[in-house]
Amino acid sequence: MNDQTKTPARAIRSGGRAARRAARAAPLAENLRAIRPGMEGGTLKPLSEQDMERIHQSALDALEQIGLADAPQSGIDYLVGAGCVLGDDGRIRFPRELVEETIAKANRSVTLFSRDGKTDLNLSGSRVHYGTAGAAVHMVDVHGRSYRESTVQDLHDAARISDRLDNIHFLQRPMVCRDIPDNREMDLNSIYATTAGTTKHVGVSFTEPDFVDDALEMLHMIAGGEGKWRERPFVSNSNCFVVPPMKFATESCEVMEKCIAGGMPVLLLSAGMAGATAPSTIAGAIVQACAECLAGLVYVNAVKPGAPAIFGTWPFGLDLRTGAMSVGSGEQALLTAGCAQMHKFYGVPGGAAAGASDSKLPDMQAGWEQMCTAVMAGLSGLNMVYEAAGMHASLLGFCHESLILGDDLIGQALRCVRGIEVNDETLALDQIRATCIGGPGHYLGTDQTLSRMQSDYVYPGLGDRTSPKEWEELQKPDLLKKASARKEQILRERSQARFDPATDAALRARFNIHLPA
Amino acid sequence: MNDQTKTPARAIRSGGRAARRAARAAPLAENLRAIRPGMEGGTLKPLSEQDMERIHQSALDALEQIGLADAPQSGIDYLVGAGCVLGDDGRIRFPRELVEETIAKANRSVTLFSRDGKTDLNLSGSRVHYGTAGAAVHMVDVHGRSYRESTVQDLHDAARISDRLDNIHFLQRPMVCRDIPDNREMDLNSIYATTAGTTKHVGVSFTEPDFVDDALEMLHMIAGGEGKWRERPFVSNSNCFVVPPMKFATESCEVMEKCIAGGMPVLLLSAGMAGATAPSTIAGAIVQACAECLAGLVYVNAVKPGAPAIFGTWPFGLDLRTGAMSVGSGEQALLTAGCAQMHKFYGVPGGAAAGASDSKLPDMQAGWEQMCTAVMAGLSGLNMVYEAAGMHASLLGFCHESLILGDDLIGQALRCVRGIEVNDETLALDQIRATCIGGPGHYLGTDQTLSRMQSDYVYPGLGDRTSPKEWEELQKPDLLKKASARKEQILRERSQARFDPATDAALRARFNIHLPA
Repeated sequence: MNDQTKTPARAIRSGGRAARRAARAAPLAENLRAIRPGMEGGTLKPLSEQDMERIHQSALDALEQIGLADAPQSGIDYLVGAGCVLGDDGRIRFPRELVEETIAKANRSVTLFSRDGKTDLNLSGSRVHYGTAGAAVHMVDVHGRSYRESTVQDLHDAARISDRLDNIHFLQRPMVCRDIPDNREMDLNSIYATTAGTTKHVGVSFTEPDFVDDALEMLHMIAGGEGKWRERPFVSNSNCFVVPPMKFATESCEVMEKCIAGGMPVLLLSAGMAGATAPSTIAGAIVQACAECLAGLVYVNAVKPGAPAIFGTWPFGLDLRTGAMSVGSGEQALLTAGCAQMHKFYGVPGGAAAGASDSKLPDMQAGWEQMCTAVMAGLSGLNMVYEAAGMHASLLGFCHESLILGDDLIGQALRCVRGIEVNDETLALDQIRATCIGGPGHYLGTDQTLSRMQSDYVYPGLGDRTSPKEWEELQKPDLLKKASARKEQILRERSQARFDPATDAALRARFNIHLPA
Repeated sequence: MNDQTKTPARAIRSGGRAARRAARAAPLAENLRAIRPGMEGGTLKPLSEQDMERIHQSALDALEQIGLADAPQSGIDYLVGAGCVLGDDGRIRFPRELVEETIAKANRSVTLFSRDGKTDLNLSGSRVHYGTAGAAVHMVDVHGRSYRESTVQDLHDAARISDRLDNIHFLQRPMVCRDIPDNREMDLNSIYATTAGTTKHVGVSFTEPDFVDDALEMLHMIAGGEGKWRERPFVSNSNCFVVPPMKFATESCEVMEKCIAGGMPVLLLSAGMAGATAPSTIAGAIVQACAECLAGLVYVNAVKPGAPAIFGTWPFGLDLRTGAMSVGSGEQALLTAGCAQMHKFYGVPGGAAAGASDSKLPDMQAGWEQMCTAVMAGLSGLNMVYEAAGMHASLLGFCHESLILGDDLIGQALRCVRGIEVNDETLALDQIRATCIGGPGHYLGTDQTLSRMQSDYVYPGLGDRTSPKEWEELQKPDLLKKASARKEQILRERSQARFDPATDAALRARFNIHLPA
């Protein structure tokens, strides 16, 4: 036997670092990776079946007895047409049979398309996706420890960064372009800045119903025509259709009607604050959020049966001592996980907020707050985890470094969502036997260990696992500086999502695009 | 009506800050607090019933077919006496009937006593407690960003700090006194340094069986006699009775026998590393840990039926790329949560590791790693969450500031463990009605909101929830500096746990106590 040829085989069996490095270098097929978008959660169930039934019945009671005020005339017409009752007090009440019927016939799944077809999101069952969202007005400068107003360039950069992060599955607009004072221009430039930065699915808002036509025109141009847009709408409308408690947001409802007509999926977003605009109890806040979103579901299906809609129960926590919003608390984690269970109860695609922090900077507090809410959202099987990365100061600040670190954080959360596989191979009885009886007495470098190295384990991109000695030898790397370096690297590269020159020129000719060409 | 007397009532109803502050100032009865030790977890179930049955059967197979090597002669005698079979290969094999019988008759609960009777821990069902543990060899200097050897003073300070933190429910020795080279003196001084710093339950280890007699003598002196010690043993033995895979740790088994004889509860600690000393799959690592701890349970009950023992399945994760230990990963969170479910499956009090970080410093990575594992451990109903605060560098470093911040972190995790109460009051339908129909249109300052302010919500001690504007006005407080200030404050105060002068003098006369008097 030739020793030269034998060496590699022995190295693999004996499990040295070289063997592990070699195995790691081999590319892994997408379906063998440890984590991916749309993994099935559902192992966390803070609510019992009976709890959910009671929440549902209370939501039906609220809709039937209290109803919602302030629908636009068009909404009144749609809803009364569907069987709702307009009271003398101007409130629209929903007979429980109508609500139950709507739930029974509502979409069981929604596809949120990507622009390039590579990262479409299938919202159904307990499939989990993480992404950004929000309306932050500040950018966080981590090294200067300061806040400044957010700009369209910041938004575009967030899109470009998200485009490169495996565990950021969609980009809902996380911040407002404060440098564009005109609301119409701001809304249109938000679409341009996000879609020019990422081919992943994008979510945006519209300040006025009147802006939707322009937005659709822009999207048709980007898609290559209205037909192509309607085939694969790659932008959805994040729509605050209610002003909790139990009032429709009149203008947003009109926006919603226009988006439905334009073939754009709608996120029915009910963002109550427990203790302020929703009851202070977790159960009560969930009841109200469910009632409001059920009203929205009836509305959407009255406008267009089967129109794609996401059940957006987004109750937020409050610091009741001060009245300040709080998004990183245990109460927030429970609010969101409970809502995720209700989405399963109704069998409709849903989303809620998790992964944001109250801390002003990406510090230890930010880490624990973001993880607590993010991992529990995933474990509860939330389809769309919004605000999942980069959000600070109770949603007022967005941070690019934190977004990048969020990719690591969400990677670990997704590993937890994937859960524990139990089968003959993973139970490993044969392996234990072979190792203990006449074997090496350890599992390093067994075929099973090597084969699991990439398929079962998630490794941090920037997180540090060195020993104190190695860490010193590496000059004690700083997490935030590593994140900044990664940011600079991404932003130096040419964006793959940029539009072709002809489309870009046409967009710039038709709209006042603020981003430099 | 007198406006002067009316004002306070209106202020409460209208929910101003003053009213909330007043309500907050009122002390709350212990049983009305939002969180406390021993809350019931169990809403997270990564393993199905069938999964647990398969893990159990595989563990029984492993015990019956593979067995454990290296028992001391005394252990062989106990185990063979109980019905085990000593093979020609020196391995002790466990008939499955014997194991099932042991599980059936094992303790369903263990009480871990505090020295002052105020913080006893009742380990049963899904009751959750968080505390320290480990054998770190370094202290982390957060401001100097450096590691140094840990000392007996550091250990004592950790005890004093833990004594003051509500959410640190016990103090298992988290670090080694590197300044005491003699092992016997180190073990004895570890008892002194911990018990002199906190009246909470303490866990310690013994390097050699021979040291246990001295330790018991010390504990009798502290307790005020052997009878009082045996009535309320306030120190337990963290015992690494196995060297995974599937070997008894000969000397530690002898330590265990001595501790059982001395009335000291034993933590049966099996600390395999998935991919090195345990199978690389999560299910396989849990199988092996369960098999090893079941062997320990048979052993303990053979020595003394019903002796208090904690089922310590502590499998750790590994970074398979480098072979380095990893304790802050998603895999770790699943290993620990799965083990917690197996404790429930067996109906025995159990513990595992969660809340530690691979990061060298208390940074954002530390926050997300500690929370991911800590909250999932609690949600899965783990009785004893060991290593839950202060641990860095994959268990090599301990950090006082991180311990203090861990109190905040665990507070939020405990809020999640408490879960969502669903009843007529929390569903809040009447409140929604009263608010929406003829009411103020918000819930600020309602009686229900004020009454829930303290009973339902957990507020951070050091975590920051200010707005960016307030934060700037406060000179941008730094989380780690706040933790250091809190540390200095605690260590300036006189420890309430210190022994009375006569006892202290007697201890110092009998033993070489390294801490200054």
